[in-house]
Amino acid sequence: MYTIYGDVNSGNCYKVKLLAEQLALPYTWVGIDTLKKETRSIQFLNKNPNGKIPLLETEDGKCLPESNAILHFLAEGTALLPTDRFEHAHVLQWLFFEQYSHEPYIATARYIVRYLRRPPELEAQLQTKMIPGYKALQVMESHLSSQPFFVGGRYTIADIGLFAYTHVAEEGGFELANFSAIRQWLERVRAQPGFIGIG
Amino acid sequence: MYTIYGDVNSGNCYKVKLLAEQLALPYTWVGIDTLKKETRSIQFLNKNPNGKIPLLETEDGKCLPESNAILHFLAEGTALLPTDRFEHAHVLQWLFFEQYSHEPYIATARYIVRYLRRPPELEAQLQTKMIPGYKALQVMESHLSSQPFFVGGRYTIADIGLFAYTHVAEEGGFELANFSAIRQWLERVRAQPGFIGIG
Repeated sequence: MYTIYGDVNSGNCYKVKLLAEQLALPYTWVGIDTLKKETRSIQFLNKNPNGKIPLLETEDGKCLPESNAILHFLAEGTALLPTDRFEHAHVLQWLFFEQYSHEPYIATARYIVRYLRRPPELEAQLQTKMIPGYKALQVMESHLSSQPFFVGGRYTIADIGLFAYTHVAEEGGFELANFSAIRQWLERVRAQPGFIGIG
Repeated sequence: MYTIYGDVNSGNCYKVKLLAEQLALPYTWVGIDTLKKETRSIQFLNKNPNGKIPLLETEDGKCLPESNAILHFLAEGTALLPTDRFEHAHVLQWLFFEQYSHEPYIATARYIVRYLRRPPELEAQLQTKMIPGYKALQVMESHLSSQPFFVGGRYTIADIGLFAYTHVAEEGGFELANFSAIRQWLERVRAQPGFIGIG
């Protein structure tokens, strides 16, 4: 039995929940509200000194933060993480791409719009997310125009990692109408066994 | 024989070079100048559509971008990547921490100061890097105050990943004087067999 600390509306947390459901793992979900600074409590910081969710805790009290490290940990030994060495490397490549070139723009724009209700003082910052965010979407679109999933022609945790914030990109102001390969891929992800929506 | 495309002064590229040296891997280094937009050429974009270095190419032409995915790929099966499942997860945790909570502040500040020569129009952006950059250093300092390396009490690719930009953090304006655990850890990394400096 795992304990997962998270916010069901956060894409980073949803990734972990979606994978746990698809692998039928036993887990308890503990809701954490970042706007109420629940990630800054001493109790939480003892579990993750970086003060971020999601956080996975094992029955014997071991803690693992970082959404994509949790995906990798939980998927090891399952069909959702390739064993071929180069395919495995490509899964990690896309997970690092997600955290460096995608999430800081697409997730942060959504955070400003949805969580912070688009305050005027953050409008300039919101606008700086658009060009790099669309660049990340273009990289995904090119890749998906010739293959159904990110790695090895089949559904892996690379797809889960990238689905999480891409499918709600429009909430942050990104328009997906011109990204037909992405939109078809979103539908393929939604059709996977055990799929659950965010929230 | 691998081909590594990179800039010897980039921390992300240096990570890969340091590991390749420490593992005594055969490789050819191809210098890439991002300021001359060499990562935006069609030739390079064919190898990495995200237009970033470092990039690893195998003899049969397979390409792998993302510095930390390259570290993981090259270190697999060596002493620098733990086989214990939870230690392995912690290595990935710290590599994701590096790319999300550390590099965008500490590396980017250095880039503005060192590569772009601190232009006045980027001064405000430079200042926004300080608080989150110091927060990342504080997370590292706390962790290293009770253990010699990031994972499992021994040198791994988590240390390589975090050493790359931490040891040159002062070039971006971060003062390490008050981070004694980090400074001692930097020395332990420098004392590893096969260590080479940046540049």
